[in-house]
Amino acid sequence: MRIDDDARIAVIGTGTIGASWAALFLAAGHDVAASDPAEGAEARLRAQVAANWGDLAALGVAKGPVESALERLTFHADPAEAARGAQAVQENAPERIEVKRDLLARLETTLAPDALILSSTSGLKPTAMQQDMTHPGRLVVGHPFNPPHLIPLVEIVGGERTSDDAILAAVAFYERLGKQPIRLNREITGHVANRLQAALWREAVFLAREGVASVADIDRALTGAVGIRWALMGPHLTFHLGGGAGGMEGFVKNLGPAVESWWADLGDATLDDETARVLVEGVAEETGGRDVEELARQRNAALMRLLALDRRV
Amino acid sequence: MRIDDDARIAVIGTGTIGASWAALFLAAGHDVAASDPAEGAEARLRAQVAANWGDLAALGVAKGPVESALERLTFHADPAEAARGAQAVQENAPERIEVKRDLLARLETTLAPDALILSSTSGLKPTAMQQDMTHPGRLVVGHPFNPPHLIPLVEIVGGERTSDDAILAAVAFYERLGKQPIRLNREITGHVANRLQAALWREAVFLAREGVASVADIDRALTGAVGIRWALMGPHLTFHLGGGAGGMEGFVKNLGPAVESWWADLGDATLDDETARVLVEGVAEETGGRDVEELARQRNAALMRLLALDRRV
Repeated sequence: MRIDDDARIAVIGTGTIGASWAALFLAAGHDVAASDPAEGAEARLRAQVAANWGDLAALGVAKGPVESALERLTFHADPAEAARGAQAVQENAPERIEVKRDLLARLETTLAPDALILSSTSGLKPTAMQQDMTHPGRLVVGHPFNPPHLIPLVEIVGGERTSDDAILAAVAFYERLGKQPIRLNREITGHVANRLQAALWREAVFLAREGVASVADIDRALTGAVGIRWALMGPHLTFHLGGGAGGMEGFVKNLGPAVESWWADLGDATLDDETARVLVEGVAEETGGRDVEELARQRNAALMRLLALDRRV
Repeated sequence: MRIDDDARIAVIGTGTIGASWAALFLAAGHDVAASDPAEGAEARLRAQVAANWGDLAALGVAKGPVESALERLTFHADPAEAARGAQAVQENAPERIEVKRDLLARLETTLAPDALILSSTSGLKPTAMQQDMTHPGRLVVGHPFNPPHLIPLVEIVGGERTSDDAILAAVAFYERLGKQPIRLNREITGHVANRLQAALWREAVFLAREGVASVADIDRALTGAVGIRWALMGPHLTFHLGGGAGGMEGFVKNLGPAVESWWADLGDATLDDETARVLVEGVAEETGGRDVEELARQRNAALMRLLALDRRV
């Protein structure tokens, strides 16, 4: 099981995530066969690939003009037709288990038995998805972060019936695309990165709701310090260096009791109406009237600058 | 209450944090009067100021040669002597309440009544610190992140008896130094940033201990995705954009239930011996034999590249 450099990739579901994947696959030289049931999906897909092309060229991934890349993109009303002849499918269907199962059944009617099915699911477990599959061994979660054509991380996890071979092929595929895959040893709700994100946000929401600091100031605690570090090193390596010459062992010994006392003091949160009001008003103050579209443009520009930087430690 | 541009600043406690503060204050043009009871502290302080100067010059903060800056640095065996004539003290004494109280009493014997006392404490509450002070209104926590001369964030919080005037003077002082102060409305264990950091690390330790992914891969979940975002935007603004045109309101409405289900599923952790073993071995694998000193050098170089970048959204 492997995905060749010039393999055809099917992209099923071409919303924001799927279209971003399609742009990346085309940029890396793959033919892409796409499918999505939404009205006007093909036109939107082609427009988004074109819109993403500049960033992919700036990062050195896309070579040549987008026009010739778009000639390698076909669109199919039937997902099974998109899957025909593909060495891999990246599926980005809605996050409902029955939708995913129906889709997988349709794909397997035309897909070669040794072709891989990669799922962008953030919330479903692969064991549940592969339940009715003819060849369940080939189902691998390849969970990206938005936008997939720019953010390096892809979380790889298989279900109970996924083959090691499929996992290794998925890792190799994403690495060749310039991604940074991480491999989960077992499935868990939210995978790794969203769990870490959720854990931090729970405390952020607690602090905002308690009025300890403003929503904007809590955000600045990340952009002014903690987020800067984590763009370079994860929390374990950060604390390894925080332990001085003793490293992580010294850190746990010297600062472990303080950290455990902080853990015991952390808050809880629910997204009730009053909490939602605090968050919505706090963000309105933080953004100072800039709308989401303008913020997204500024975020993308900053993201491009950051991704072009050598962040290796 | 204000700190003039050419004010003398006392730095009490000249370990890593204090020496880094001293370098920043000198770079900004202040005279610095330092004190630390440790053997050889003055020589180490001067060496660290010199070592930090290149970074401060590269960031455009330090002007002129370090030699002339070091002429503006005096060292005093008695902290009360260092405080004499200072408009502000930045104290970095050990994190024990009785040590802090003794020190504050000594400083107040010579300090002008309208001079500010800024504390770098990460773990103590200002109300406890100001209990026996003659002029408690002037005590403000100004909690930095290591290294203070580079990381922008300073957390500002007063105790029950701190004056608003002192808070405002502290904010103005750090802003003029190019820092990004955030203001807490009330004191809380660990302030804001360390609580957020602790919340995320608890889940990271849980995932490592459970064997869901390796220590290195959990770290990569940050450097490959979540940390990249948080270097640009905090979690609230991130989710505001994650809500599409509906912003935070749309996010809470559409994705709130999923987030709450993840919150309910998050793990717990303790730093027991077996957990410490998993973390120490995991970090050893991650660092591939590089020692803490080499890693710190690489981290500092990457940090300088990142700080020079325009990260504004």
